[in-house]
Amino acid sequence: MRIAVDAMGGDFAPGEIVKGTVEAGRKLSHISKIYLVGDSQSVKRELDKYPDVPEHIEIRHASEVVTMEETPAQAIRRKKDTSIGRAVDMVKSGEADAVVSAGNTGAVVVAATLKLRTLEGVDRPAIATVLPTVDRQIVLIDAGANTDCSAKLLGEFAVMGSVYSRVILGQKDPVVGLMSIGDEDSKGNETTKQAFQIISNSDLNFAGNVEGHDIFEGKTDVIVCDGFVGNVVLKTSESVARAIGHWMKTEFKRNPIRVLGTLFLAGALKSMKRKLDPEMYGGAPLLGVNGICIITHGSSSGRAIFHAIRVACDAVEQKLNEAISKEISQVVNQ
Amino acid sequence: MRIAVDAMGGDFAPGEIVKGTVEAGRKLSHISKIYLVGDSQSVKRELDKYPDVPEHIEIRHASEVVTMEETPAQAIRRKKDTSIGRAVDMVKSGEADAVVSAGNTGAVVVAATLKLRTLEGVDRPAIATVLPTVDRQIVLIDAGANTDCSAKLLGEFAVMGSVYSRVILGQKDPVVGLMSIGDEDSKGNETTKQAFQIISNSDLNFAGNVEGHDIFEGKTDVIVCDGFVGNVVLKTSESVARAIGHWMKTEFKRNPIRVLGTLFLAGALKSMKRKLDPEMYGGAPLLGVNGICIITHGSSSGRAIFHAIRVACDAVEQKLNEAISKEISQVVNQ
Repeated sequence: MRIAVDAMGGDFAPGEIVKGTVEAGRKLSHISKIYLVGDSQSVKRELDKYPDVPEHIEIRHASEVVTMEETPAQAIRRKKDTSIGRAVDMVKSGEADAVVSAGNTGAVVVAATLKLRTLEGVDRPAIATVLPTVDRQIVLIDAGANTDCSAKLLGEFAVMGSVYSRVILGQKDPVVGLMSIGDEDSKGNETTKQAFQIISNSDLNFAGNVEGHDIFEGKTDVIVCDGFVGNVVLKTSESVARAIGHWMKTEFKRNPIRVLGTLFLAGALKSMKRKLDPEMYGGAPLLGVNGICIITHGSSSGRAIFHAIRVACDAVEQKLNEAISKEISQVVNQ
Repeated sequence: MRIAVDAMGGDFAPGEIVKGTVEAGRKLSHISKIYLVGDSQSVKRELDKYPDVPEHIEIRHASEVVTMEETPAQAIRRKKDTSIGRAVDMVKSGEADAVVSAGNTGAVVVAATLKLRTLEGVDRPAIATVLPTVDRQIVLIDAGANTDCSAKLLGEFAVMGSVYSRVILGQKDPVVGLMSIGDEDSKGNETTKQAFQIISNSDLNFAGNVEGHDIFEGKTDVIVCDGFVGNVVLKTSESVARAIGHWMKTEFKRNPIRVLGTLFLAGALKSMKRKLDPEMYGGAPLLGVNGICIITHGSSSGRAIFHAIRVACDAVEQKLNEAISKEISQVVNQ
């Protein structure tokens, strides 16, 4: 198992990226090689902070980075020696089995799509995000790779999300829901109504439409939507959680009795914060490209990088892409 | 000021509807007449529970109701004597200045659109919802009336939302944001990119794209989106708030010390619950129809109905529709 890590991507690169990589090198015994791809000097400086760096961690120099401000497509086409581009190249050439990046999401999507191409039968790759619900983890796909989607694309996302839930999250026969605005077949926009038919005619365990209020109830294991809606859902959820956190802080400090109460609840509040912490969920795979590619949040800590590398290993070992290739043909335009 | 209230719409009709109407009749002195439209026997039975029903509350009989299960368009076309249909008729004939309903949202939209028609220059009406943010109330439009929207429609929603924020919520020169998935001009789907140009060329105080995580931060006073996205945003927000409430309850009860802490925080928790309570926000107006029409949540209590009637009065008094008519022409297809 060989993993290429984009050492320069993310708000806390290369420090946190190197930290997570070192932890993965120490703890994940089935990895034979981890490549830290990026500016060799600054990566080495970070690596030197650790007394016993595992020997199978190796630096691969790349002289450029894609910044968060650049237009992804332009950046990838113009800059030939970026850390994310080089890391993806290693998967393409077979030097690495998977790539992990906390960099500019658009740039990762463009680099992976251009260089690795899609799996046969997959028209466009999609980002799958794992979300916590009341009782388990679910997959939301697409979380932002495609803003305008045909019904057939939504069907493909349904298959890829279902395979991910089964193969990586261990959900037996995952229940798939289509994000819409009413649970009757007839509800939705023109695209979701067509997608409803396409998914109905597949072999997936399809529960029909789901609505926004079903998401965190965990009614289905997979939620399918276009990348515009998926992105809005994710960011809105973060926004609500943050607003509630803000109101709680204000209210809980309003008088000394409340402050005392808050002290008694410190453990509970910490445990809730952990539950809502996106870093625990191991990054978001870009599904449908011919190679394993895991994208993590721009603000990823070492902990998040460690989990992303762990998920990348799982995806390779469990032959995620073979399963997608085998099952994608059940999606047929109606 | 004369208000027609759909006495039969909503999960707790006619009891809660009558309760809210009686409260409005007592407290809102500028109302000269409130019509309770619905089955006269059951409405009278509810009214009789109150010792001193204001004299200007009057029952208007309607023999049918639209249920939550019916297809709105069919129900309105087939049933000629529904409570919502009759209540809207009263606005059309000039007997009432505004209509309030907690019934099937789709049926209210269809009845109001068919019977009242749209204001000149408005292609389609839209539902505006008022949301709490960290420091004030904002308007989200469209919250679910139109699933497939052109860029021009989004431009019209922008004007109507801006007028509502200024005229009803008292926001001076409201800042308008376009819901998208990145704050640069170039981000979004094909429709939002076009809408960006249309709104940019209007006289609105346009702040450009906003993202899901900006909503509850209150970055803008108005958020414009199609009804599919708006509906997903609202229901997702409710879902997140409920999931957090659920986790809090579980965590806060895990041991006696925490239970004690929760007691100390009872006031804070109550105040937060109030803040998140949709009933405080006075219902959602259907903007763009030739008449004032306020839709409230299906689970509306008497309190929610009271607030909706209050908002209906404001909209009539502040000449909301005249302002929309005057300003809608600034939206021009690019």
